[in-house]
Amino acid sequence: MFNTVTIVGVGLISGSFSLALKEKGLAKKVIGVSRTAASAQKALELGLIDEALPLEQAIAQSDLIYVAIPVDVTIPVMKQVMDLVTDKQIVADAGSTKHALCLALNDHPMRRQFVATHPMWGTEYSGPEAAVRDAFVGRACVICEKEKSDPAAVEKIEQVYRALGMHIIYMDADSHDTHAAYISHISHITSFALANTVLEKEREENTIFELAGGGFESTVRLAKSNPAMWVPIFMQNRENVLDVLNEHISQLRKFKACLEKENYQYLQELIENANKIKRIIK
Amino acid sequence: MFNTVTIVGVGLISGSFSLALKEKGLAKKVIGVSRTAASAQKALELGLIDEALPLEQAIAQSDLIYVAIPVDVTIPVMKQVMDLVTDKQIVADAGSTKHALCLALNDHPMRRQFVATHPMWGTEYSGPEAAVRDAFVGRACVICEKEKSDPAAVEKIEQVYRALGMHIIYMDADSHDTHAAYISHISHITSFALANTVLEKEREENTIFELAGGGFESTVRLAKSNPAMWVPIFMQNRENVLDVLNEHISQLRKFKACLEKENYQYLQELIENANKIKRIIK
Repeated sequence: MFNTVTIVGVGLISGSFSLALKEKGLAKKVIGVSRTAASAQKALELGLIDEALPLEQAIAQSDLIYVAIPVDVTIPVMKQVMDLVTDKQIVADAGSTKHALCLALNDHPMRRQFVATHPMWGTEYSGPEAAVRDAFVGRACVICEKEKSDPAAVEKIEQVYRALGMHIIYMDADSHDTHAAYISHISHITSFALANTVLEKEREENTIFELAGGGFESTVRLAKSNPAMWVPIFMQNRENVLDVLNEHISQLRKFKACLEKENYQYLQELIENANKIKRIIK
Repeated sequence: MFNTVTIVGVGLISGSFSLALKEKGLAKKVIGVSRTAASAQKALELGLIDEALPLEQAIAQSDLIYVAIPVDVTIPVMKQVMDLVTDKQIVADAGSTKHALCLALNDHPMRRQFVATHPMWGTEYSGPEAAVRDAFVGRACVICEKEKSDPAAVEKIEQVYRALGMHIIYMDADSHDTHAAYISHISHITSFALANTVLEKEREENTIFELAGGGFESTVRLAKSNPAMWVPIFMQNRENVLDVLNEHISQLRKFKACLEKENYQYLQELIENANKIKRIIK
């Protein structure tokens, strides 16, 4: 499908994307652009990329430029990328927020070459070593502001994500950010806060280590996530995240009130309501 | 090891325990005691038990009586069981709280036949259909008030749990309940509250269904857990759970304050602190 693809950033998402492109035969060559020589070297060693080059040289020989870096640096880097591409090239990002980026690129003369995407897959790990085979499978990929992109570019990007096993959902950038706050960003905050709670209350770390079972691990797993990725997400999606966080704190206060007042009938009802999530996730 | 074992309750824990006993050749026969005929029938069909009997008849022919039912009914049922056993029999429970039960049995004339245990394994499912093979492996089993039990009984129970792949930790009942609040009970409350948050904020359930990725599923998975099991746990461990819940709400308020004041330096520090959980869980 592509002769040469450049990935900007050589980490969890871009690395896994590159492995999938290669495995599916969708790219003959993948070039990596990285701010640090060590990451580029690691990505080469792991076979995530065939070559490491500076941004300009990489773009000059690529059909697709795929940007997957923290969302705060995405905006200036993406402007650089867009200033360098022609209408024969496609640009896509993989960022967890969409409003700020779409707004920043809205009036760029090459806007139609850009497809705003968010493949909703990830793990709590980061860097080239975090890249895995068979990522993305069975998950959703959101495409925002489809109407502002060249239809042929959108179609190619959709073909790639579908070949990777994803299903496509279309949204405007604001809706994406609202939903992402509910579905993804709040889970990370609760997990970070839960880790801090346990680290604060449970001074005997050996005991946590010995006792921690499946429930604890699954709720606290995301607390290992990288602040370099998550602080910018929370900055860019601040209002939505605050809105959901306020609701979450008020939901937790209901549990607190039940326990304080020993109102176990209401506690039962709160849990029964939570059980409705069964309808939604298997 | 045992000729006949009675499991009181035929659900997730007792059913998985029975499957493991049979697979390891630790029991020739397993009798199930259940309040409902339908569960007993299901347990028979699934091969969790060889026979279903009323409590008295079951105890009369058993070497080990293993009680795994919601912690509120555990206390009266355990008193009944203890009134029926001789000093040739061993009794153990699998409850998620230990203080109330140990207190209730403290002066029972057969106290030494009882071993208070909490195998720290579980899933969000319940009932006979939830029982699985290879449960318990690699997890901790807490034994409380070991010194109040007959050493021979403790040794047999430890042998069983070790044969199932568990490691043994000793604690007094109060310490167990404090640690269980940090490691297990708070995770369930955050997960119930997160489910309620998302169900409240996200009225488009189809969107949750389509977007939900690994992070959301892992933090909200426990929200499917059964209120019949969890309300009594929160009742019995009310003070410890309230203590951890208050800490958790105050940790979440720190995240909220960072976002409100746009103090991203402190947000970074909060996340870096949460990352320390890496030292403890792999």
